[in-house]
Amino acid sequence: MAAEHGEVRLLGKWASPFSNRVDLALKLKGVPYNYSEEDLANKSADLLKYNPVYKKVPVLVHNGNPLAESLVILEYIDETWKNNPFLPQDPYERAVARFWSKTLDDKILPPIWNACWSDEKGREKAVEEALEALKLLQDQLKDNRFFGGETIGLVDIAANFIGYWVSILQEIAGLELLTVEKFPKLFKWSQEFVNHPVIKEGLPPRDELFAFFKASQKK
Amino acid sequence: MAAEHGEVRLLGKWASPFSNRVDLALKLKGVPYNYSEEDLANKSADLLKYNPVYKKVPVLVHNGNPLAESLVILEYIDETWKNNPFLPQDPYERAVARFWSKTLDDKILPPIWNACWSDEKGREKAVEEALEALKLLQDQLKDNRFFGGETIGLVDIAANFIGYWVSILQEIAGLELLTVEKFPKLFKWSQEFVNHPVIKEGLPPRDELFAFFKASQKK
Repeated sequence: MAAEHGEVRLLGKWASPFSNRVDLALKLKGVPYNYSEEDLANKSADLLKYNPVYKKVPVLVHNGNPLAESLVILEYIDETWKNNPFLPQDPYERAVARFWSKTLDDKILPPIWNACWSDEKGREKAVEEALEALKLLQDQLKDNRFFGGETIGLVDIAANFIGYWVSILQEIAGLELLTVEKFPKLFKWSQEFVNHPVIKEGLPPRDELFAFFKASQKK
Repeated sequence: MAAEHGEVRLLGKWASPFSNRVDLALKLKGVPYNYSEEDLANKSADLLKYNPVYKKVPVLVHNGNPLAESLVILEYIDETWKNNPFLPQDPYERAVARFWSKTLDDKILPPIWNACWSDEKGREKAVEEALEALKLLQDQLKDNRFFGGETIGLVDIAANFIGYWVSILQEIAGLELLTVEKFPKLFKWSQEFVNHPVIKEGLPPRDELFAFFKASQKK
């Protein structure tokens, strides 16, 4: 562990996009870290000690100081290591990025997740809501390469579920949510995202995620 | 409107603690602003234009730039006007404050609100959950005067519902949630909070809030 970065540990779950956000953030900053994979059916004593409020991954432990909630962790990482900033300098632009990160978690991800796991009965309405959520996000992208402009920023990292997980989950569910025909700009962003050299290295293998969620679907 | 602060406008609802957070923040910074009261049964064209995602108050408009979501607005205010900072300098302490602000909205306020409006059938369980939430928050206060230490910070502002609204709602509901016996430290904090000279000026009158929520209860 490089002394300049202190001791950095991540308690995570490989298939979780929330946990992966922190992986991506640390990799984008070039911060080396020790990773502990959590068994969520049998949580470690450290996870329960470090995140007693939610008992969830991800947890970042930096020099013994624990932090939970992925968006809070991302901002901590950005303020602690200043290279490759995730947030712009201008206070209004920073606030807009925070708004969209929060909106991803509160309003955009839930309907997409629900659509991918919906039964036949609720499917039509769930898909409609998922498409509305994707439209909302695409509108915010405008004609930019990334949500962060020319470089990966807070919103791009927070949108990793849209950039990578959705293509896997929609295939398993037999749905067409994020496609080049329906959302050309957002689809193009997802391609830029997964092909970014650091992001590409930081995403779990597609075939393993596919198998993991396919098995979850059967249960 | 003082030129040094630019043009500041708040679209709010007088009885909403979320809206009130922004009132308090602007008053703590000494920023003059124009306030527009919203009729939530008949939302203004400005509200729908400035907050198309949630269509909710509060919305801050600063020099024509709109922002929604109270916690996002509080951080914007803190980054735009640097006097009387809401967040400490240290990145870890900043992250802890952000964690608790988010946890207030996600985990602490909902069970307390639910308990205050619960029917007889669900009351016992709802009260139990509300008391757990209050305990969680009190534990975080430790022996500090404010969550921000010796001065009002982000978590104190975000906890305005606990500091002021709860005493009104629990009286209407006939419940004992935040009392000096049950939560001595948190109760003491609530007294410090409501008696802070700027906060005191920025809270809506108790009798009007009481009448407002009493009338809501009857509906």
